[in-house]
Amino acid sequence: MVDSEAAPPEQPAHMAAQVPHADLPHVIVVGAGFGGLAAARRLGRLPVQVTLIDRHNYHTFTPLLYQVATAGLEPEEIAHPVRPILRDLRNVRFRVAEVSSVDLAARRVLTSDGELDYEYLVLAAGSASNFFGLHSIEAGALGLKDVDQALTVRNRILGCFEAAAWEADATRRHALLTFVVVGGGPTGVEFAGALRELIDHVLPHDFPGMDLSESRVILVEATDGLLAPFAPRLRNSALQTLRAKGVDVRLNTAVDRLDGEALYLKGGGQIEAATVMWAAGVRAADLAQAIAAPRGRSGRLLVEPTLQLPGHPEVFAIGDMAGAEENGAQLPMLAQVALQGAECAVANIARSLSGQPLLPFRYRNKGIMATIGRNAAVAQIGPFKFTGFLAWLIWLGLHIVTLIGFRNRVFVLINWMWNYFSYDRAVRLILGGANAADPPAPPHESP
Amino acid sequence: MVDSEAAPPEQPAHMAAQVPHADLPHVIVVGAGFGGLAAARRLGRLPVQVTLIDRHNYHTFTPLLYQVATAGLEPEEIAHPVRPILRDLRNVRFRVAEVSSVDLAARRVLTSDGELDYEYLVLAAGSASNFFGLHSIEAGALGLKDVDQALTVRNRILGCFEAAAWEADATRRHALLTFVVVGGGPTGVEFAGALRELIDHVLPHDFPGMDLSESRVILVEATDGLLAPFAPRLRNSALQTLRAKGVDVRLNTAVDRLDGEALYLKGGGQIEAATVMWAAGVRAADLAQAIAAPRGRSGRLLVEPTLQLPGHPEVFAIGDMAGAEENGAQLPMLAQVALQGAECAVANIARSLSGQPLLPFRYRNKGIMATIGRNAAVAQIGPFKFTGFLAWLIWLGLHIVTLIGFRNRVFVLINWMWNYFSYDRAVRLILGGANAADPPAPPHESP
Repeated sequence: MVDSEAAPPEQPAHMAAQVPHADLPHVIVVGAGFGGLAAARRLGRLPVQVTLIDRHNYHTFTPLLYQVATAGLEPEEIAHPVRPILRDLRNVRFRVAEVSSVDLAARRVLTSDGELDYEYLVLAAGSASNFFGLHSIEAGALGLKDVDQALTVRNRILGCFEAAAWEADATRRHALLTFVVVGGGPTGVEFAGALRELIDHVLPHDFPGMDLSESRVILVEATDGLLAPFAPRLRNSALQTLRAKGVDVRLNTAVDRLDGEALYLKGGGQIEAATVMWAAGVRAADLAQAIAAPRGRSGRLLVEPTLQLPGHPEVFAIGDMAGAEENGAQLPMLAQVALQGAECAVANIARSLSGQPLLPFRYRNKGIMATIGRNAAVAQIGPFKFTGFLAWLIWLGLHIVTLIGFRNRVFVLINWMWNYFSYDRAVRLILGGANAADPPAPPHESP
Repeated sequence: MVDSEAAPPEQPAHMAAQVPHADLPHVIVVGAGFGGLAAARRLGRLPVQVTLIDRHNYHTFTPLLYQVATAGLEPEEIAHPVRPILRDLRNVRFRVAEVSSVDLAARRVLTSDGELDYEYLVLAAGSASNFFGLHSIEAGALGLKDVDQALTVRNRILGCFEAAAWEADATRRHALLTFVVVGGGPTGVEFAGALRELIDHVLPHDFPGMDLSESRVILVEATDGLLAPFAPRLRNSALQTLRAKGVDVRLNTAVDRLDGEALYLKGGGQIEAATVMWAAGVRAADLAQAIAAPRGRSGRLLVEPTLQLPGHPEVFAIGDMAGAEENGAQLPMLAQVALQGAECAVANIARSLSGQPLLPFRYRNKGIMATIGRNAAVAQIGPFKFTGFLAWLIWLGLHIVTLIGFRNRVFVLINWMWNYFSYDRAVRLILGGANAADPPAPPHESP
């Protein structure tokens, strides 16, 4: 082959050039979520070389994904590229790749772009939606687990309104303007509240000729109440607030299947809706199933009290992916659990390196909270319980200070102030090509 | 079919509800770019009912697409949803749809979502990349004509650096880090300059172990100079500035074909590159070819001096889509031509409504400018010619004040100030799924 270009200069193998401390033990961290990113940053202070792997080149502030889905925030306000976060840690390198499996015996991570050997491994690949075997719903419902899914949800919502503006058939239009949220946990509650406010306060300006009163947000929950982990008073407050905002909350209602026509409920009945959002369950990421290790409930990897995999003291699993237990029950899938797990796992790697005995993981519950649209939230911090506007202010402050990156904080603050005072949303772009926002084939295709 | 839901309330036909002045003449505007949006806003003051149609729900400030492609700006900073722009115009409605054709005889627009009849039609669908029959390049090169393409370019650039970080083979890595820009017009020059600065000033912080000096930005131009419409002194200044910034500018170099291995040049020679960006030609949008009307150079619709289609006085064509002439030459594809064309077309519709004679289009050249990265630009405004930092300040000010939307202006200004003083870029997210940034199959698959 003739190459008219100057030959590239000869260089040492590139991978070696990326590892300034090639003689030190190699620690691989899988996942740049709350747990994995915290682990990589802490490992940066130890005498090890670290490789952090994620399929995205950014860390996502997942608690605010619902704001992206409801056009309140833009992706870059809740996502931050990983490389600048790790810039000052000379012994940490980052790789974008999909981790497909781990060969525990060979101590090797298998990725879409090659294999890497490790001396220590921290598994922090997070979670995925759990559809509990409801295949038709898995195929037809939207999720809210990452930025791409959040943009898909936003495109669908706005696309349904655009399509409804063309639609003369009242039944079809009704289905286009019906949004069902399955699951009454924090994600479902926060998303339903924000969507109701988008429809009530923002979209009427954009669609002045449309009767938006026929648009419905229906929250379907299988048990007898919302926000299961919260105290009864807060659960009740959330239910009342959400209903007062106009969300049609249906308790004790389980779903069965979904097709182009409707969402069918267990025990009969159906809801004609072009959009079904699934927030009813999570399970450990697929990677947990690809590893030859025992798993517990929700597919989470079983771990020793020290967060090590049984029989593999060099492998730690943290966060949503691991089933760390407290008083015989799995710890919840929360950012706090992942962050504290990272702290424990890295401390134990340091102890292992220096030959000290490892310490068991102790989770300190710093509190839980959830917003219900504008001005309202529930928060439970130790013995203290807050509702309404005060809880919302607490939620707002905590989320802004914990967002990574100063510029993100400034932009998010400007956006939220704007939304609050103007009752508007910043920008409502349908991105991703001409068909990105196409709703599924409308129900009632033939009369 | 059993419907357990309350039947939707009976309503008047929805389309009618969207047209508050159904007795007035119906004007359809195709395209919400500079020309179409300006036409719709001006038509909002006439005694007509207006339907504006675009395949996106947003207007794009296309002169800054290259900034999105090089991670300097985010999509929502240069794109603005159409509906809020039209909010106060009660006789203008907006529809998201792809216009596939126009039945001139029946006075009917055919779209992906139905048909609409008109009394007047303004065609402003803009332009698309012109590959001049180079099919392999059309299939393999990236474009920069809309926000989605700009995001694809950004994903590709960042993805190539992520892939290069894994790549031990020097020849493959060299190809991953080689970016070819075809075409030395304003788009090619601005993109190449911004890309070189991204690589030289921002990415070294993200890839501390990588030798970025082997990364090349090559600008290939078939003629003997850059920026053909500018005065010789400015063209020369642009060439020198771009080369001083490190762009490898190759004049008198035409391209022939592209495969997974390389970009092959006319007359022999080739460049191994994973990324080829096409900025060498534009033509009228596909819609122009779907209309039974005569076309001129670049597929642009021929128009009378009044901007009417020959034989169809009720149809006006403006902007990139129309070949309005001045002194026997087609007017350039510039935002100014589209904006002034909209003004003329709407004035002529008003004259037609009141039975007055129509006026011919007179283009007033307000000047042209192009940036060459940070701190440098060329600008030609009437008899005045500017280069360097002064031209760049003029460019900056003009682009900020003409961006639609107050908030966009504030955010863009913050972003630019940040970039200027920190030599950093805001956010470098690879969005759009795990494979969004995958470069094409690397060249030299077998040694």
